Amino acid sequence: MKIALLGLGQVGRSVLKILAENRTYYEQRFHRKVEIVVAADFHHMLHSEEGIDPQRLLYYKEKGDIWGTGYTEIDRETLFEREFDVLVDLMPATSDGLRARDLYLGSFSQSRDVVTACKSGLANFWPEIMKSAVSSGRQIRYEATVAGGVPFFSFIQQCLRSSIVTRILGQVNSAANFVLLNIANGETFDHAIEEAGKLGILEANYHFDTLGNDSAWKTVITANSVFGSKLKVNDIIFEGVEGLSPEVADLKYTRLLADTEIQDGKLVASSTLRKLEPSDPLASLKGTGLGFTVYMKGRAPLTVLEFSDGPTETATAVINDLLLL
Amino acid sequence: MKIALLGLGQVGRSVLKILAENRTYYEQRFHRKVEIVVAADFHHMLHSEEGIDPQRLLYYKEKGDIWGTGYTEIDRETLFEREFDVLVDLMPATSDGLRARDLYLGSFSQSRDVVTACKSGLANFWPEIMKSAVSSGRQIRYEATVAGGVPFFSFIQQCLRSSIVTRILGQVNSAANFVLLNIANGETFDHAIEEAGKLGILEANYHFDTLGNDSAWKTVITANSVFGSKLKVNDIIFEGVEGLSPEVADLKYTRLLADTEIQDGKLVASSTLRKLEPSDPLASLKGTGLGFTVYMKGRAPLTVLEFSDGPTETATAVINDLLLL
Repeated sequence: MKIALLGLGQVGRSVLKILAENRTYYEQRFHRKVEIVVAADFHHMLHSEEGIDPQRLLYYKEKGDIWGTGYTEIDRETLFEREFDVLVDLMPATSDGLRARDLYLGSFSQSRDVVTACKSGLANFWPEIMKSAVSSGRQIRYEATVAGGVPFFSFIQQCLRSSIVTRILGQVNSAANFVLLNIANGETFDHAIEEAGKLGILEANYHFDTLGNDSAWKTVITANSVFGSKLKVNDIIFEGVEGLSPEVADLKYTRLLADTEIQDGKLVASSTLRKLEPSDPLASLKGTGLGFTVYMKGRAPLTVLEFSDGPTETATAVINDLLLL
Repeated sequence: MKIALLGLGQVGRSVLKILAENRTYYEQRFHRKVEIVVAADFHHMLHSEEGIDPQRLLYYKEKGDIWGTGYTEIDRETLFEREFDVLVDLMPATSDGLRARDLYLGSFSQSRDVVTACKSGLANFWPEIMKSAVSSGRQIRYEATVAGGVPFFSFIQQCLRSSIVTRILGQVNSAANFVLLNIANGETFDHAIEEAGKLGILEANYHFDTLGNDSAWKTVITANSVFGSKLKVNDIIFEGVEGLSPEVADLKYTRLLADTEIQDGKLVASSTLRKLEPSDPLASLKGTGLGFTVYMKGRAPLTVLEFSDGPTETATAVINDLLLL
């Protein structure tokens, strides 16, 4: 499997690190050879028919300039002239999602599958992107867009086929909830942002996290993927975590939660601040923890928890998508 | 997909109920028509080329005799002369596992796949059964053998491909832990068994649960499936929950746990009574709850919890296997 890896931020670099470590394991266990033939950051797009060594690329990226790797620099316009199977989009979100939409439609029309960790394209243009994938006979996988490294879509798609999902309640954005917990503990907003930045869990523009856009995107993608809706961000109620203080609200069990539910045959979706019961398993998540509870018709709900999440975990979601293609 | 459903105990009847309710949904969503063409309990084996109606079969089973359905009774010896794709084994365990082994090898040699909820065959003859499946080009799926309705093997196989699993710690048998919690609360062993029976979570011979065999089987299947070992039950240390009293031990956080772990490159597996930290997410499981934590190389662990489990949940695991084939 030849991939074009676009975006070498925190998640992109973690993908390189994991591929460097686990490539042989994937080959032995799943008979899948994941080979990077195109890699790009903001400054350069590099190409090698023989494959780009992830370790080497990572070394130069961390030193400051991937051009030093010696791989051939190519014009971004010529991307689809290169031979590869899957486009991997790990670039920063833009609020309108146009960049991502155009890239995915372009990929499908050029017979490439897509794996993405980027939310805004899917959250703004879900019907158009899915229709294009189907009509081109291509696949798009997006595990990393919701709940970081917690298996979410693969869990629902592969593990819960026999059950009819009626509701998903999730703590799916670590940055916003990390800030919330810090404020609950008496820290300032600015301090929390600084700490979140160090952990690599912030969007390039952190207001996407703290104003609630990121969680709203995730809610919309969840609703559309699981319940077959065609929602856009402006169709749902969402809020963020800016301007809160522990004096004005009891924040200890308050979380920014994505909630999508079928009520009387109608889908209700929101991404808002909610107070959990202390006994709710989601309330046990601290720091950068993520998790969700799935409710299903006629059977007990299931909860999946990850007690800390970061770029490494999100990168495992990206690679799992590649191995499921 | 045509199936032969063998065993109409608690789990078998739940499979019938779910198929009656969800068959149309499966057809619409996954384009899979699950059709029962052979069904058997201890007394009769019935056959219908046009398909056995699960609702009708359930009605007569609960009334007492499936012969009343009017479907053709056939000789068990002629099972493989019937046209079907998957043999579904929901029959009671035998401690030696011979019955199950012979049935699966027979299925593979007759070009049928197998879905099973029965542990003892796999726990006693794993290498032989897997070798036979591979050499016949058939599949065997066994989601329901471990942790009831909690997605376990599908979770590891589909959602965690990109990570290298190093340890799985699980509360995977609801009956034993239900008895344990009841004793911790001051109930008698006999009372706990009676209650567990009402919930439908006991093996036909309940000593398989309370002496620890069932959990040991699950531990062995986990080890062999996830870590590629060839263990048998007698290769691991296991214990049960008989003869305990709250006076002799602090049982509040004690659980019967299946633990399989790679330590210094070597697999260590056990199914023993262990005291959990009160903050361990598995300690939050009460009653018939089940769950497990997966530890992986270089990334945060994941925990999956189900706060109550019973035949319905186990039946969803059986049907999920059918939909994954």
